[in-house]
Amino acid sequence: MAQKYTTREEDYSKWYNETIARADLAENSGVRGCMVIKPYGFAIWEKIQTQLDTMFKETGHQNAYFPLFVPKSLFEAEEKNAEGFAKECAVVTHHRLMTDPEDSSKLVVDPKAKLEEELVVRPTSEAIIWNTYKGWIQSYRDLPILINQWANVVRWEMRTRIFLRTAEFLWQEGHTAHATKQEAIDETKQMNEVYARFAEEFMAMPVIQGRKTESERFAGADDTYCIEAMMQDGKALQAGTSHFLGQNFAKAFDVKFADKEGKQDFVWATSWGVSTRLMGALIMTHSDDEGLVLPPALAPIQVVAVPICKNEDDLALISERINNLGAKLKAKGISFKFDDDNNRRPGWKFAEYEAKGVPVRLAMGMRDFANGNIEVARRDEKTKEIVSFVDADTYIEKLLIEIQENLYSRAEKYRSDNMREIDSYEEFKTKIESEGGFFLAHWDGTRETEQKIKDETKATIRCIPNERKKEAGFCMVTGAKSEGRVVFAKAY
Amino acid sequence: MAQKYTTREEDYSKWYNETIARADLAENSGVRGCMVIKPYGFAIWEKIQTQLDTMFKETGHQNAYFPLFVPKSLFEAEEKNAEGFAKECAVVTHHRLMTDPEDSSKLVVDPKAKLEEELVVRPTSEAIIWNTYKGWIQSYRDLPILINQWANVVRWEMRTRIFLRTAEFLWQEGHTAHATKQEAIDETKQMNEVYARFAEEFMAMPVIQGRKTESERFAGADDTYCIEAMMQDGKALQAGTSHFLGQNFAKAFDVKFADKEGKQDFVWATSWGVSTRLMGALIMTHSDDEGLVLPPALAPIQVVAVPICKNEDDLALISERINNLGAKLKAKGISFKFDDDNNRRPGWKFAEYEAKGVPVRLAMGMRDFANGNIEVARRDEKTKEIVSFVDADTYIEKLLIEIQENLYSRAEKYRSDNMREIDSYEEFKTKIESEGGFFLAHWDGTRETEQKIKDETKATIRCIPNERKKEAGFCMVTGAKSEGRVVFAKAY
Repeated sequence: MAQKYTTREEDYSKWYNETIARADLAENSGVRGCMVIKPYGFAIWEKIQTQLDTMFKETGHQNAYFPLFVPKSLFEAEEKNAEGFAKECAVVTHHRLMTDPEDSSKLVVDPKAKLEEELVVRPTSEAIIWNTYKGWIQSYRDLPILINQWANVVRWEMRTRIFLRTAEFLWQEGHTAHATKQEAIDETKQMNEVYARFAEEFMAMPVIQGRKTESERFAGADDTYCIEAMMQDGKALQAGTSHFLGQNFAKAFDVKFADKEGKQDFVWATSWGVSTRLMGALIMTHSDDEGLVLPPALAPIQVVAVPICKNEDDLALISERINNLGAKLKAKGISFKFDDDNNRRPGWKFAEYEAKGVPVRLAMGMRDFANGNIEVARRDEKTKEIVSFVDADTYIEKLLIEIQENLYSRAEKYRSDNMREIDSYEEFKTKIESEGGFFLAHWDGTRETEQKIKDETKATIRCIPNERKKEAGFCMVTGAKSEGRVVFAKAY
Repeated sequence: MAQKYTTREEDYSKWYNETIARADLAENSGVRGCMVIKPYGFAIWEKIQTQLDTMFKETGHQNAYFPLFVPKSLFEAEEKNAEGFAKECAVVTHHRLMTDPEDSSKLVVDPKAKLEEELVVRPTSEAIIWNTYKGWIQSYRDLPILINQWANVVRWEMRTRIFLRTAEFLWQEGHTAHATKQEAIDETKQMNEVYARFAEEFMAMPVIQGRKTESERFAGADDTYCIEAMMQDGKALQAGTSHFLGQNFAKAFDVKFADKEGKQDFVWATSWGVSTRLMGALIMTHSDDEGLVLPPALAPIQVVAVPICKNEDDLALISERINNLGAKLKAKGISFKFDDDNNRRPGWKFAEYEAKGVPVRLAMGMRDFANGNIEVARRDEKTKEIVSFVDADTYIEKLLIEIQENLYSRAEKYRSDNMREIDSYEEFKTKIESEGGFFLAHWDGTRETEQKIKDETKATIRCIPNERKKEAGFCMVTGAKSEGRVVFAKAY
């Protein structure tokens, strides 16, 4: 009676939605484009948050909280930023509802409660934050300011997909203020590096670090650094960005400081963020046709144990032994769940924890019990071993490390198999369609060529990689000179 | 040159604002009624969050996330709830801005981007959550649902005060669904008990647990439990509420379940929340004319050390010794800061950490160094001791516990000194004005009498206490029979 699920090969997009539903991560809500993050999905997000928060604090940042609303006059102050986000703003215009005069069971907007100035629901917080920083900064002694905020933001996207593109999403946004340009650039790079480290060490997701081209930059930034990951369908996903904002916001909000000599200058800024989009990246990097696959470092349940027995007496014997192992695992900091719910059969549980991506699943029946063994199944490779019970905790501890490493290697291999240098635009046009993946190609550095490629192939320049070989060449489209290859791909 | 600050006696309200500013906790923002929570204030809120989150999880709850917006048609579904919040709703009516045709540097709302249905920015999430639960609940097997959400909410308050009453605030809201009335009532009581335990053990703030009268209930609740604390000016602050929602939301959103016999019934609900208002309660329970006083359990910095010396060589000697102590304290889980910033003088630092409420401040000069001593100052009682350096870590560890207990006892003594039984309404009217505090009085149980007292004295019934002596009496206003005394006070 097993339900038939869509495979990745059949329809990657449908598989993605089904994987989310099967693992009970999130669902669409009654509000257009907004999602509900369900407890299991949120538990993964909490692990992401906790780890990133630790890394931000280790690099000297503190958390704070700024208003949800941005008055229109502040929103429009930094022109490019305003232009970039104006088309997707939720706007609050009234502060009261009243009973509908025509139907007392309904409410209508009270026309008398119109706001003097409209409020934009933050799509990003540079404007409100720089308007605040203005009051905090007088001298170089007040710098740097190194602040992060965990918050919800709203961007009115027309086409939405759970985790990848939703009208409301959760994110963190760092906003820092510096006395010198160099210090701000160093901060921008440092935070992109933090994102890369998080992606690789915790998400087991290899990323390419690089800079965006001018046309792909954040609205209001002088430079945007990013990490780009390859999904299993060969498409790119921008997993995090770190912006050098120059003095743009300081000028828009008139934020100056006196340096040691008393000379006034505008403050230098950065901002950087990752969002619940990382959940989408995590799903599309590791999962398979049986459901979610989670790296142990971010799995809410790392090890689950299922007893297999026919009566209460057997269950009591097995439970005692498994709980003993559970205690040892917990002492090692491993999250462990013993599922002894007797309303569900073992087969149902196996499928359930497979769909939920629990890295290690244990099972014990009476024969295992008698032989002093336990069955250990790993989610990533779908293999099982019979392990001696006495060493099981050490075995599992090592296995979790191995799974984490294996997921990274697997993703890295997939990426290297699907990333190639290309010099012919004709070949590029064919292969981006037929094979997908990342293409390293020469580009003449102009916005026009970039746009032409995008129009003709839907591929964009994902980044100018930080680490690229020194190789002069010629643009695959125009033949003009190029200093090195950039990364092209279709992207989420 | 010490700046003169307002004392509590001079002007409690002004003192409150100055205490927040001096400790650098928060400030008003450029958005009407919305605050900016600054890093030090946010660090306290994080400690509150972490502890409450642990307690919620220990009682079986999981976190999740629901949309910020509530479509008007969902918002109005539960009539009493809608009526209660309609007058203070921020309403999103448009999803785009456009360039002002009359001034290209400005933006205006794009009239073509009017939403078909207005979206209310959540003032509370029962409506959106029960609309979601409808899809999750079919049978008793799906129950209970025990979910909590950490979120921002917006209530358009006309008169705002930092932490106490702001248009946007941060909170947690638990929303649970149950198969039986009794289970929902037990949950309501359990969570009120959790709040009381948190208030008393962590905030060192004694609270009275009780039930609200009908007129003070949450809009849409059948019963509201609360914890009420007494501030230093004798006014009451409602610090947390837990609502038994009956089947009201299940009926409004048609959420039914099949019980074990297959019989359909509406689901029973609770909701419960505390907010950044707790920050206001914390400030007004313990702080003094020198600034903030924090209970050690919620202090971001529990111990700060200040070196007192004239040259680099002395500083090196003192630093080594203090860092040694710092390491020992950290090993005990005590948060420690060594402030060796040589741009600031010791006296400035003493005043700074006093204003910030750091529970224990250490100082070491060369004489202390030579004698093997360290100066230990406690913030709560503003006393100092010279302590032998070798035992200092143990001394400080005990001192932190003592400070936590002392703050609680002090607050409890203040409350008992300012809480009295009263039987004459004339005396009540005089004393509520002249002395303030909590008054335990008999009341006839009618809404009319409650309203009359409120109109005439501004005092409200804070709660019908869970623990009250069995004492029949007569209403102080009407002389009608009463089953026991209720708590009257003016409130924040």
